[in-house]
Formats: sequence, C-alpha cells, structure tokens
Amino acid sequence: MKVYLAGPEVFLPDAAAIAAQKKQLCAQHGMEGVFPTDPRPDTDATLERWYAIYLGNEADLRGCDALVANLTPFRGPSADPGTVYELGFVRALGRSVLGYTNDSTDFTDRTLHSLGGQPTRNAAGRLVDGAGMAIEEHGLADNLMIEGGIRAANGLLVRHAVPEAARWSDLRGFEACLKALAAMRANG
Amino acid sequence: MKVYLAGPEVFLPDAAAIAAQKKQLCAQHGMEGVFPTDPRPDTDATLERWYAIYLGNEADLRGCDALVANLTPFRGPSADPGTVYELGFVRALGRSVLGYTNDSTDFTDRTLHSLGGQPTRNAAGRLVDGAGMAIEEHGLADNLMIEGGIRAANGLLVRHAVPEAARWSDLRGFEACLKALAAMRANG
Repeated sequence: MKVYLAGPEVFLPDAAAIAAQKKQLCAQHGMEGVFPTDPRPDTDATLERWYAIYLGNEADLRGCDALVANLTPFRGPSADPGTVYELGFVRALGRSVLGYTNDSTDFTDRTLHSLGGQPTRNAAGRLVDGAGMAIEEHGLADNLMIEGGIRAANGLLVRHAVPEAARWSDLRGFEACLKALAAMRANG
Repeated sequence: MKVYLAGPEVFLPDAAAIAAQKKQLCAQHGMEGVFPTDPRPDTDATLERWYAIYLGNEADLRGCDALVANLTPFRGPSADPGTVYELGFVRALGRSVLGYTNDSTDFTDRTLHSLGGQPTRNAAGRLVDGAGMAIEEHGLADNLMIEGGIRAANGLLVRHAVPEAARWSDLRGFEACLKALAAMRANG
C-alpha cells in the first residue's frame, strides 16, 4: 500500500529528515510512504521547474492508495493550500484520506485571532468579519470541506496540541493515522 | 454543461445576489452554473448541518463538467481552502478547471507581507520565514499545486487587479474563464 505524505514539511530546512522518519513509520506498518520531493528520474527537463514538480506530485497522487495529510495550520488560519488541494484530489479518486493537526484550537477561534478584531454578529446572528463575510462556526479543525472529505472517506482526523517547538516535528498524529489506516485495510 | 461555481462568495452577506449574477453569465454562454449553497431537496435531515453541506457540495462537484474557481486571496496569502479542495477534486476527475483572482500580486510578495518581517535567505539561497521554512518563488498567483492543476487541465488562470471595494464583486475574471471554457468546448 502506497501512502502519499502530504504536508507543508516540504518547506522545512530538514525536509529530507522528516521524510525519512515518516517513511520509516510507514514501513513499520507495512506501507510505503511517498514524499512530494522524492526524486523522479523521468522528469521532462524542458519543463519549468514548478510545473515539473506539479506533474510529479500529481502522478504520485494518482499512484497512491491513500493520503495522510499534515493539516497543522500554516501561515494563516488554515492548512497549507497545496496539502488541501491534494486531499481533495485523492478523495475524488475514492481512496483513503486521513489527516492530523498539531494545533487543537477551533478553526473559528483561529480565524478570529488572525483577523485581529472583536467578533461581530450580523442581523441574522452569523459571526462575521469586517467585510461582513461569515466565519464558519461548526466546531471543526478547518474549513468544512477538509473535515467533510475525511469523514466521507471513513478516514480519521486527529487534533491534538503539541509544544510550539514541536509543531513541525511531532509525529504522534501521523502515527495515529497510520494505525487507523492499517485497521481500515485489515477490515477490508 | 454544468459549471461548479467555487469561491468564498458563499461567505458574503449578498451571496445569493452574486450567485444569481454568476448563473446569469453562465446562461449567456449556454452553461448552467451550480452554486455551493443551492438548495438540495434530498438532504438527510438527520445529518449534522456542516456534513450535509459537504455531501451536497461533493455530489455537485461529481455532477459538474467543469469548475471555475474564485482564487482571490481570502484571510491570508492564499485562496479559500474550501475552494482549493474543490479545485483539486475536479482536476482529479479529469474535468475542466479554470480560475481567476482579483489580486494581481505574486504569491511570494503576499506571503512576505503576511509574515511581516524582512525576507531572509538561507545558506542554500532559498527565501525563508522566521522558522526557516521556504517561501515559494515561482512567480505564481498561489501555491504551485493550484496553478499546476489548472495548467494540466489546459485551463486558464486570470490574474488582474481590481479596486479594493470591488474585490468580491468584480466578475471580469469570471467572465474571461467562461469565454475560455466555451472556446475549449467548441474546440474539443
């Protein structure tokens, strides 16, 4: 079983080390981890670099049986958009999608915090920002499409808090996803 | 041809008015626009509201021939995550995906602005944030997965600047996408 390892770890200075750790954990569960920056010998050298990266990632997404996403908020109240794109992509293919976040706060609270101001309610009672745009209040970890896709796939979303210094290195949520994925496979 | 109208307009106080405008423009091009908040008579009333919304949106995504996404940055340097999820979803199905943004600035510049600090380069010459995490420098409108998916689908990404007051109402980019979609259909 090939598992696509989605997440903003690709931007870390020690991305290769995290990739190796995640692959090792996959191997312990009898799975093969595929990391977005894994080298691809068949890359067309005439393509722009960013587009070659895209095509390689897309091929890996189509070739995987499952995706485990690191949904820890990244540069804003939500998960990394590349990771969210990949989650939607693999869910559309009908495969297993799971995720974890190392930030346990609600999406609503993080959104309010990022907007800075005091919460306001409009005449209809909806929580809104300064432009009058509604703020989701579903008690979820992020935008409802993210958690909805995971639930629709009978996946797992692990929310737990970790010390700030371990935000990008704590893999307990990742391991919980692998265990759930192994159990899903065992149960057919 | 059914076109899914993805974007953060669902959060606007006048979402219904924008939905009507977008559907009218679709009709002018011989297409049927499907808006995420369109009523669904077959919703299971026992489901939690957010999950019923998800399932309805997912059914609409699977039922559409194309998606046009409003990728204008929303509450951070990137597009609305629900919209990004939907873009990846429809791309995975091999259908047409197009997008527009009413903010013409580069993703790199917006990311730097949102981070507040001065740009720093690491020993390898990569632009990094305070945590040492790399910042994309591809001259794109957003995370490379977003623009890559549109290019891989032979779609169109329209980037143009509009006055701040028209950020959520200017539909010129949307119309340009519909014209491109009509031409794609005529040619293929």
